[in-house]
Amino acid sequence: MDESSPIGHAPQRRPTIRDVAAAAGVSRGTVSRVINGGHWVSPDARTAVDAAIARTGYTTNHHARSLATGRSDSLAFLLTEPQHLLFSDPTFALLLRGATQALAERSMTLVLLVADTESAQANIEHYVRAGHVDGVLLISSHESNTLLTSLVDAGVPTVCSGIPLGDHAFVPTVSVDEDGSARMMTRYLLDRGHRRIAVITGPDDTPGGRFRLEGFRAEMGELFDPDLVEQDTYDSDAGAAAMTRLLERAPDIDAVFAASDVMAVGAIAAARKLGRRVPQDIAVAGFDDSGLAATHDPPLTTMRQPWPEISSKMVEMLLDVIRGIPREAVVLPTTLVVRESA
Amino acid sequence: MDESSPIGHAPQRRPTIRDVAAAAGVSRGTVSRVINGGHWVSPDARTAVDAAIARTGYTTNHHARSLATGRSDSLAFLLTEPQHLLFSDPTFALLLRGATQALAERSMTLVLLVADTESAQANIEHYVRAGHVDGVLLISSHESNTLLTSLVDAGVPTVCSGIPLGDHAFVPTVSVDEDGSARMMTRYLLDRGHRRIAVITGPDDTPGGRFRLEGFRAEMGELFDPDLVEQDTYDSDAGAAAMTRLLERAPDIDAVFAASDVMAVGAIAAARKLGRRVPQDIAVAGFDDSGLAATHDPPLTTMRQPWPEISSKMVEMLLDVIRGIPREAVVLPTTLVVRESA
Repeated sequence: MDESSPIGHAPQRRPTIRDVAAAAGVSRGTVSRVINGGHWVSPDARTAVDAAIARTGYTTNHHARSLATGRSDSLAFLLTEPQHLLFSDPTFALLLRGATQALAERSMTLVLLVADTESAQANIEHYVRAGHVDGVLLISSHESNTLLTSLVDAGVPTVCSGIPLGDHAFVPTVSVDEDGSARMMTRYLLDRGHRRIAVITGPDDTPGGRFRLEGFRAEMGELFDPDLVEQDTYDSDAGAAAMTRLLERAPDIDAVFAASDVMAVGAIAAARKLGRRVPQDIAVAGFDDSGLAATHDPPLTTMRQPWPEISSKMVEMLLDVIRGIPREAVVLPTTLVVRESA
Repeated sequence: MDESSPIGHAPQRRPTIRDVAAAAGVSRGTVSRVINGGHWVSPDARTAVDAAIARTGYTTNHHARSLATGRSDSLAFLLTEPQHLLFSDPTFALLLRGATQALAERSMTLVLLVADTESAQANIEHYVRAGHVDGVLLISSHESNTLLTSLVDAGVPTVCSGIPLGDHAFVPTVSVDEDGSARMMTRYLLDRGHRRIAVITGPDDTPGGRFRLEGFRAEMGELFDPDLVEQDTYDSDAGAAAMTRLLERAPDIDAVFAASDVMAVGAIAAARKLGRRVPQDIAVAGFDDSGLAATHDPPLTTMRQPWPEISSKMVEMLLDVIRGIPREAVVLPTTLVVRESA
């Protein structure tokens, strides 16, 4: 039952910020800061306030707050990829889960928008500009995508996952060290004795596609063979097709670095179809450590992206940007996870 | 580039409704009706207008329209299930795809909201009541869920998938004939010679969980054995656990009717683990014909729900409700799809 609503329910004595402050042993200002995004609050105070909110049954009067601030108390999780990828690539689910949790802690709503066609993108742009969300978490931007520029031009607070290619230095981003991560995986494969290492990377208009290839090339040094490079979309079918082409062109390859786990899964299936065992005949490493890496047969050796940190950091930065607090780009570290596929 | 925006771009000569009407050979009123939801328009006129819109490059000036109507030109696709089900149960992706397409045709935005906790539900309720969406497509409502009542009490236009249990006769619904579909599948299993047929159904507070069991029981008649009933959540693990319990209790069962494909997949995995072949030792039938049914090994015999029709009908009805046009419940037919699992 929604007791904070002005419509249809008899008013009752509801716990106030004052009650929460007393229960938490902090000032009302601290409670207010926790409720309004948790900035300038120590972790201890925040924990105390959260506990006091639970204990008193306090609920924010969003409606009144929204009217007062002109805000919608919501952020968009805006995916600029085909809708089916939302379901076939587990990394989006991981990012979405983290963002949902980060918003739930702040009593805000996560609004999922999928701009998978030009017209959907135009509609979403109108929706966002009309103020139905307070800001945008932009997920997986291709360089050719004009949405980022439009949003920023229109003054919509926006934070990107990954470093958008092109001239977007003014947009705060949360990314991983693509180049360094690719070098680390390539170094691992070299240290295991592989020499004919191929790479299956993502589209060149995405930071992952471009910078993972650059890192691979740099680490391979003189061993780099341009014939052993495949570049395609981040899906399983593309990974399979790339592996098939690689094995036709260069039957002697002994390892493959795939720029996503989903591509690695496709590559492994294709290798098996052609009678190659993984990892015995060909080692196949992925990237992401998305949900499927640990449960795949064989479990994937991969670079773990820190998914919960990426999305919670994006939310935190976006809330700052909405408040007019400037934020810089953040680069998070990845971890080499050695399992069985390489 | 967003030429209809009032911000930042020099105005250009944009095609108008008049241009579209001329190109389509229809009146401006017809074009307007197509743009505003497609009601009272013949399919031929609609096709002509859609083609003319594409040819002239006409884009609706949403921003102006939204200001004039006070509408957001968006509908919520509101899921009242745990977020992980959005990714693990392919039926949600099928419904979402249909709804997205139906909205894209009308130049509207689909806003995906997941009310998977009580607090998320409260936040979403505020968001919806504040007018950030024009109406709600409510997906998968449990009887205990108070959201439907709250939305309807607050005057939010709402259409449900499935018939919500409890006293909600006033909410337009799009559902399938749960009882009749379950009877059809049960009759099929009986006709194949099975006699010890178990059922794994969904939660009793969902229409599918309750009415599929009722249909099964009715069709089994005197063969119905209350010992061969399992009821749990609609996921694969629950299906596996239910099958394990059934085989412990009644090793002689020769067929299982699972109330969802995802549950059937779990049930088949569990049966195999216990050394039973499907369909040779135990036939296992599903329900939904979701994406995984055709590609599963063995391919699933199942009841096909008409997913694209369900979501496009929901959108069409909701747009009517928003305009104040009353709509009745719609029940769509299902189809028995015989593959290899039963």
